[in-house]
Amino acid sequence: MGMRAVVLRDGGLAVEEVPEPTPGPGQALLEPVACGICGSDLHCARHARTFTEAARATGMRMFDFDPGRPLVMGHEFSARVLDFGPGGPPEAGPGAGVRPGDLVVAQPVIRAQDGFRSVGYSNDHPGAYGERVVVQASGLLPLPEGTDPVHAALTEPLAVGLHAVNESSAVAAGGAIVVGCGPVGLAVIAALRLQGAGRVVASDPSPVRRRFAGELGADVVVDPHEVPAVQAWRDLAGRGPAVLFDAVGVPGMLRELMRAAPSRSELVVVGLCMEPDVIEPTVAISRQLTLRFVLGWSPAEFAESLAGIAAGRLPVASLVTGQVDLEGTAGAFQELADPESHVKIVVRPNG
Amino acid sequence: MGMRAVVLRDGGLAVEEVPEPTPGPGQALLEPVACGICGSDLHCARHARTFTEAARATGMRMFDFDPGRPLVMGHEFSARVLDFGPGGPPEAGPGAGVRPGDLVVAQPVIRAQDGFRSVGYSNDHPGAYGERVVVQASGLLPLPEGTDPVHAALTEPLAVGLHAVNESSAVAAGGAIVVGCGPVGLAVIAALRLQGAGRVVASDPSPVRRRFAGELGADVVVDPHEVPAVQAWRDLAGRGPAVLFDAVGVPGMLRELMRAAPSRSELVVVGLCMEPDVIEPTVAISRQLTLRFVLGWSPAEFAESLAGIAAGRLPVASLVTGQVDLEGTAGAFQELADPESHVKIVVRPNG
Repeated sequence: MGMRAVVLRDGGLAVEEVPEPTPGPGQALLEPVACGICGSDLHCARHARTFTEAARATGMRMFDFDPGRPLVMGHEFSARVLDFGPGGPPEAGPGAGVRPGDLVVAQPVIRAQDGFRSVGYSNDHPGAYGERVVVQASGLLPLPEGTDPVHAALTEPLAVGLHAVNESSAVAAGGAIVVGCGPVGLAVIAALRLQGAGRVVASDPSPVRRRFAGELGADVVVDPHEVPAVQAWRDLAGRGPAVLFDAVGVPGMLRELMRAAPSRSELVVVGLCMEPDVIEPTVAISRQLTLRFVLGWSPAEFAESLAGIAAGRLPVASLVTGQVDLEGTAGAFQELADPESHVKIVVRPNG
Repeated sequence: MGMRAVVLRDGGLAVEEVPEPTPGPGQALLEPVACGICGSDLHCARHARTFTEAARATGMRMFDFDPGRPLVMGHEFSARVLDFGPGGPPEAGPGAGVRPGDLVVAQPVIRAQDGFRSVGYSNDHPGAYGERVVVQASGLLPLPEGTDPVHAALTEPLAVGLHAVNESSAVAAGGAIVVGCGPVGLAVIAALRLQGAGRVVASDPSPVRRRFAGELGADVVVDPHEVPAVQAWRDLAGRGPAVLFDAVGVPGMLRELMRAAPSRSELVVVGLCMEPDVIEPTVAISRQLTLRFVLGWSPAEFAESLAGIAAGRLPVASLVTGQVDLEGTAGAFQELADPESHVKIVVRPNG
C-alpha cells in the first residue's frame, strides 16, 4: 500500500507515491490534519547535504539522515488517530486514553532500541508532509474539546519558545529583548507573555514581523536599522544586565549581540545557526556574559504549549498566514523565503 | 625625582630610570615587596600592539594603553605603605586604619573621573615592577599579622580563581573539571577546595603542572593526551552534566571543550583568549550548553582571597617557584614560557 507525500530528493520537493508507514508495538498511525512548515525544513530543503553533515559532525543525531535518499519532512502537526500497532493503545502516559478517531498532537519522535529518532528528519520515519504518519503512541496528547487542529499544529514551535524562556533568567530579570521575529522569535515573545516575564522589547527589520511582535504583546518593537534593540531596552528598563534571545540564527549575529549586550547579560541562543561561528572571547569576558544554548522542549513543556493554545493564552491564530495542500507545499517553501509575506504556512496533507 | 622600574618598550623589557609617581588625593604611595608575573603580562610583552588593539576593539578599557609609549606592568603585589596623597589616609573602606609602614595588598586600580583605571596596563599609572607604585588608598588591605608578603602577592590571581568558582555552578554540582593547570587553573582548583566544591578533576599536558594540581587538592589529575578530562570525570562522578573551567585561553580550546562536554554542561571561560575564536552553535545547541565568561573579582572576593592565604586555607606557598629582582625580570619572562620550570615567579622590586 502506498500514500502520497511531499518528498525531498536532490534538493527538490515533489508529491510522490511512497510506502505507507506501519505502526510497530507502542506506535500509532495518524492522519495529519495540519503540519506547519518550520525554518529548519526550509534550511534542510535548500542545503540538505551541508545540513546533515554539520549535524553529524557535531553530534546532532536527531538530524542525521542520508541526503542521497528521499526524505519526507514535517514535524509540527496535529492529526487524527487511525490505528495503533500490535498491543493497542498506550496504557500509560499522556496518550493513555486516546482512541482511533481522536484528534491529537504528537511529539515527532519514534523510540528505537538505542534512543529516540526524529520523525521528519529520518529516511526511515517519514514526517507529516504525507497522508499518514507513525509516531510513538506514548507521546500523543488529545486536543482539548473545541481546539482548532490548525492552531494545535503550532504546539511544537510554541513549545520551543516556552522551553527557551524557561531555561532563561527572563522572568527573574523582569523581561527580555527578542532579536528576530520570525516564527521562533514570535514563539519566544508569546512564551514571555505566558510566563509573565515583565517587559519585552522585540527587534526585526521586517515591518510585517514587527507588527506580529506587537500583536503578540511586545511592549516596544524596533527596526534594528533605526533603533538598536539594546538601546530600546535601556530606554524602557534602564541600564543593567539584560536577557537577550537570539532568534535569528545566522553567522555573525551572536558576535553582534555580544558586542551590543550590557555587562553581565545573558544571551539565549534559540535560532539554529548550522555553520561554525566566530565569537570574540575578550568581548564576552570583559562583559562577563553568559551564553545559553537551548534546543527543543520537555514533554511537560509540549503539553503546556498545547494547553496554552487551547485556552487562548498563547494567541497563535494570527500566525497562520497560509494553508496549502500537498501539491502547494513546494510553492509554500518558496514563498516563506520572503519575510514580508508569511509567518507560518501549514500543510493540510489530507485536504 | 626618579625611580628604577622594568619598562616595556618596543617589545623589550629593560630596567630604566622613570619618573616617580606622586599620590593624589585619595591615593597611596607604596613600596612593592613582591609582585607576581601574570600570564597576561607575558602576552602583553610579546604582543603589546595586538593585545591592546584587541582590547580596545572589544571594549576592554582596563587594557587600553598606547603601545608606542613605555609601559610599567605589574598588578599582583604586596607592598609597604610609604605615604598618602593630600587628605591623608582613607577614612572609610577596608584601608581606613592603614598607616605608613604597614604591609598591605592593594587592588591594582586608580579612580579617575570617568571610572577606574588599571595600575599596570596604563601608560599613566605604572605598575609594581618598579620601586614605587601609586594606587587608590580605599582599596588597601592590611596583611594579617604574620602573613608572608610573598604569599600575599598571590591575592590577586587567587581572587580570580575564587571569582570564577563563585560565578559557576560548581559547588551546587558537586565538583568540576579544570582544564589547564597554569596559574589560573591552579587558582581555580584552590578556590574549588576552599568553597567545598566536592570532586575535582584536573587536566594538563605538563607533568610539573599536574603535580601542583594534585598538591592543591585535585582528586584526579590527567594528561589529556592519555585520558580525556571528561572521561576521567565520568569515571569519578558518573554521567550527567558537568562544570568545566577553561583555564587555557588559546584559540580552539573552547570548541574542543564544547565537543567533549556532556549534555547540559556549564563551561566557565576564565583563560583569556585575546583572538577571535570559532565555535560550533550546533554543538552548543544540541548539548544545550551554558557558557559563562568571567573576569576579575569583587572587592569582597579580593579580601576573601587574602584572608584565605593568611589562614593557610589557600595553600599558595608551593606556587612561588622563583624570585627575582628588577634586573632578573626580563629573564623571568623568558623562563615562564616553559611550563616545566615555573608556576609563579615574583619580582622583588626593592630587593
